[in-house]
Amino acid sequence: MRLSKSFIPTLKETPNDAVVISHILMLRAGMVRMLSAGIYSFLPLGYKVIKKITSIIREEMDAIGGQEFHLPALNPREIWEETNRVEAFGDTMFHIKNRDYVLAPTHEEIMTYHARNVLKSYKDFPQIWYQIQTKFRNEPRPKSGIIRGRQFLMKDAYSFDTSWENLDLSYNEHDSAYRNVFDKCGLKYFVVGASSGAMGGTGSEEFMVKSEAGEDTVAYCEACNYAANVEVAKSTLKAKERDALSTHIEKISTPNIKSIDELCEFLKIDETQCAKSRVYIHNEVSPVLVLMQGNDEVNEIKLEKILTGKVRPAHIEELKELTGAEAGSIGPIDFKGRIIADFRLQDRNNMYSGANENDFHISGIDFKRDLKAIDYADLRIVQEGEPCPFCGKPLGVFSSIELGHIFKLGTKYSECMGANFIDEKGEQHPIIMGSYGIGVDRVLACYIEQHHDDKGIVWEGPLSPFDVHLVALNSKKQELIDKTNLIYRTLRNAGLEVLYDDRADAQAGVKFNDADLIGLPVQIIAGEKKLKDNMVEMKIRKTGERFDINFDDIVTKVKAFYEDQK
Amino acid sequence: MRLSKSFIPTLKETPNDAVVISHILMLRAGMVRMLSAGIYSFLPLGYKVIKKITSIIREEMDAIGGQEFHLPALNPREIWEETNRVEAFGDTMFHIKNRDYVLAPTHEEIMTYHARNVLKSYKDFPQIWYQIQTKFRNEPRPKSGIIRGRQFLMKDAYSFDTSWENLDLSYNEHDSAYRNVFDKCGLKYFVVGASSGAMGGTGSEEFMVKSEAGEDTVAYCEACNYAANVEVAKSTLKAKERDALSTHIEKISTPNIKSIDELCEFLKIDETQCAKSRVYIHNEVSPVLVLMQGNDEVNEIKLEKILTGKVRPAHIEELKELTGAEAGSIGPIDFKGRIIADFRLQDRNNMYSGANENDFHISGIDFKRDLKAIDYADLRIVQEGEPCPFCGKPLGVFSSIELGHIFKLGTKYSECMGANFIDEKGEQHPIIMGSYGIGVDRVLACYIEQHHDDKGIVWEGPLSPFDVHLVALNSKKQELIDKTNLIYRTLRNAGLEVLYDDRADAQAGVKFNDADLIGLPVQIIAGEKKLKDNMVEMKIRKTGERFDINFDDIVTKVKAFYEDQK
Repeated sequence: MRLSKSFIPTLKETPNDAVVISHILMLRAGMVRMLSAGIYSFLPLGYKVIKKITSIIREEMDAIGGQEFHLPALNPREIWEETNRVEAFGDTMFHIKNRDYVLAPTHEEIMTYHARNVLKSYKDFPQIWYQIQTKFRNEPRPKSGIIRGRQFLMKDAYSFDTSWENLDLSYNEHDSAYRNVFDKCGLKYFVVGASSGAMGGTGSEEFMVKSEAGEDTVAYCEACNYAANVEVAKSTLKAKERDALSTHIEKISTPNIKSIDELCEFLKIDETQCAKSRVYIHNEVSPVLVLMQGNDEVNEIKLEKILTGKVRPAHIEELKELTGAEAGSIGPIDFKGRIIADFRLQDRNNMYSGANENDFHISGIDFKRDLKAIDYADLRIVQEGEPCPFCGKPLGVFSSIELGHIFKLGTKYSECMGANFIDEKGEQHPIIMGSYGIGVDRVLACYIEQHHDDKGIVWEGPLSPFDVHLVALNSKKQELIDKTNLIYRTLRNAGLEVLYDDRADAQAGVKFNDADLIGLPVQIIAGEKKLKDNMVEMKIRKTGERFDINFDDIVTKVKAFYEDQK
Repeated sequence: MRLSKSFIPTLKETPNDAVVISHILMLRAGMVRMLSAGIYSFLPLGYKVIKKITSIIREEMDAIGGQEFHLPALNPREIWEETNRVEAFGDTMFHIKNRDYVLAPTHEEIMTYHARNVLKSYKDFPQIWYQIQTKFRNEPRPKSGIIRGRQFLMKDAYSFDTSWENLDLSYNEHDSAYRNVFDKCGLKYFVVGASSGAMGGTGSEEFMVKSEAGEDTVAYCEACNYAANVEVAKSTLKAKERDALSTHIEKISTPNIKSIDELCEFLKIDETQCAKSRVYIHNEVSPVLVLMQGNDEVNEIKLEKILTGKVRPAHIEELKELTGAEAGSIGPIDFKGRIIADFRLQDRNNMYSGANENDFHISGIDFKRDLKAIDYADLRIVQEGEPCPFCGKPLGVFSSIELGHIFKLGTKYSECMGANFIDEKGEQHPIIMGSYGIGVDRVLACYIEQHHDDKGIVWEGPLSPFDVHLVALNSKKQELIDKTNLIYRTLRNAGLEVLYDDRADAQAGVKFNDADLIGLPVQIIAGEKKLKDNMVEMKIRKTGERFDINFDDIVTKVKAFYEDQK
């Protein structure tokens, strides 16, 4: 494609409203433009990559027997009432003002609607139905460009089976199809919630990539691929050994000391000797004292799982009433209520904690001796570098984006909507379903998050919008123009996709910068001086390597480069 | 694809709510299902054809330098206010209830928005931007299946030029791209509003196909391709010659005679001797008497053009007041107001018309002698069979559907929205635009309207969802199953797309009917008896021809069939 005739409006400067790198680079490389908060238009260069992604997805979905549908975005509200999801989605669902429609944020209901009364016999199964289509969600805080928008392109798939065993098969097929898709796209991803066993798996897996634009924090082990949302990631840090001798309990004056760090500094002790106290109210009724070592944070999700129910931190007045003290001076001795401590405090002695009296702490606490009614549990938020619960190697903890999600729905939708089948014995059962999504826009954004440098995008592999960026440095002398045009034709005739910067009035510097910004894998730079010697320059975008090659070798060299990449 | 594993829910009976043949066949062949009035889901077979259509469209749009965008369906309302089209669309535009968005019924505004301030210099032109995307319109009376729905797939394109001459070029490129698309798709179409000259054309052309499902009535000449909406189609029927002698005017009693047919029967005269009177009120002020020969109908659109302004038929009271008579007894003699007659009445004599007195007519009217202040014009609605105004061959008049529309917008949108460019002299001008649409769903529906018989769809050419329908008539004996499976593999290995009816429990009759209903061009029928002799049956769907072919010749014969089709 000739750049002079293309609409690729590159930007030299970083747009004001863009923070996330993929967003910045997609704007700068002229791939997308914002129409409104969370609503983006794909320009030709961006949409070209989207089409490459969808073609990879189709290939893999077709390979597992997926059949491509195309369902309406406009849905009668009443179908969504059958599953109570109008209420469940609330304001996240767009409603139409002048007719009783909603815009589909996903398509479980509509797929089930089409399966109902049509997939009737066990012989009609299994089925995998998918589509690649725009979804609409009234995201309250759209951000990070196309990563979190109010309309986005999604591949969603649904499986229909007659047994949970068959659902496992459909689920596992999607699992491997998704891995193939992301591998082919060249994404480095990890799977959260995956089982360690080969078959079965848990009920749900998320395919995620590390990204500052992400809203989930994940603990991930590079060594064994253990990955879990930090809310549930296991901490396996052991408690320190008890000291050989336990001292006596002693109340000590600690004026104005509130934090663990202040306490350590004041008493010249290590934070591992401190048991930090937090009071929670369980199910709005029972006070619970939670003890953590030093500065460790309470993971409230874990706490709720252990206590079964809801918890919230106690208010200042409740603290005062329950302990007689304020936060910073609270401790387990004589606490009236349940006490639960993190595993790192198990059976510890010679510990410091609050005295339940402002400006006083207690030293010499022996958990075995002084705290009879205490439970221990994993209550920590996992930290970067602590050991993986499976292999012991250091965990990474970072923000991540969900690219895909596979999910065993079971009979949730088929029961609500009465989608049943008749088995071999003539008995009726609800269809057993799975649902499987890929955020197509996110694949693009995440690819760029993972493949860029300070000059721009660095394409590799099948998502690259073109194979070669041909830069014509001189467009005055007809003889040289003819020669560069000939390169363009020759490369295209060899089956390569070429973006040809033939702009007559652009400076060399602008052309070089645009080439690096757009970031195609190979650049062929045709300058006057070298062309006269029948030479051009070839530049590898990723490494920055440049070398002169003979005019007649261009196709061979470019093809050799791509062969090497395989 | 194996039918046993596919979702192609064919129907034996015609669904109740379907009237139009394409709608019936798309439902029966399992290509679409209705979700709600005017809202359809594409099932895999239907969507497969849609993908074939869009790939043809992309090919042709890319060939004229079109660049593919993908614009949001959710649009901020305020952008549409810039052109006043929120009001213009009125209730036809879907509005979102829980945010100030509309759903785009078309994309002129959004494309202009992206061009504004980006296409700045004359050097940035020309541009052709297109997309293939769902549009939303709150159609009050959706009907005919996917032909007139509330959401539909459209290819819309927009051209941006710096002069009207260049717009002509962009427009003509679209004109030929559209002809290529419809030709490749195998549609018989005609173009309404096309100029007869090679370049330039008028400001707008519609690509239409004849169809009972259509809402436009069109006059079309097969011989010279003249086509015009019947509202504007020229009638060139000449007036009859005057009789040699004019009789005298005479008032005759015609008790209870109201219609032309009653008058003819009563007086034993021919309808060509009658001048039918209709009184219209022009611009709510002036009465106009319109005279038509016999039963010819007044074309009010032509009348409005001639009179410049609005017309409406006079009410009963107005008639009485103006003429003293009721409809059926009104005539030109002594009519107080302008008289305008169709060309077929020009200078006629010995004519009959109303006497402006109930139950009386007047005979012997000589238009030259008795009606001095009379104008003649083409006021008829063209009828089937009358001569083409260009070549004189008989015109067809029929219902038609618009498949595509190309339109010179000029500066309508660029002026409203301030989308300007700077020319060679540094002067600023509004961008000159064109807009071009193809109804993708309609291409599919119209194809079926034109390619079917009483058994089902008859696919030919590139839109056919598969190349071969392979029917296995026996699925009990493993040896025969293996043999049919081998045919399946062999055909696929030869690069053919095969729909393989491998259903174990379907009767032969059901399989034959489904094969004819789905209508792939070639059927290969593998039955036990013939298979034993190493033979299968090949059936050509269109002609119904059947012949036995050798197992080893299947690929050759199928390929030969397709070669012959080219």
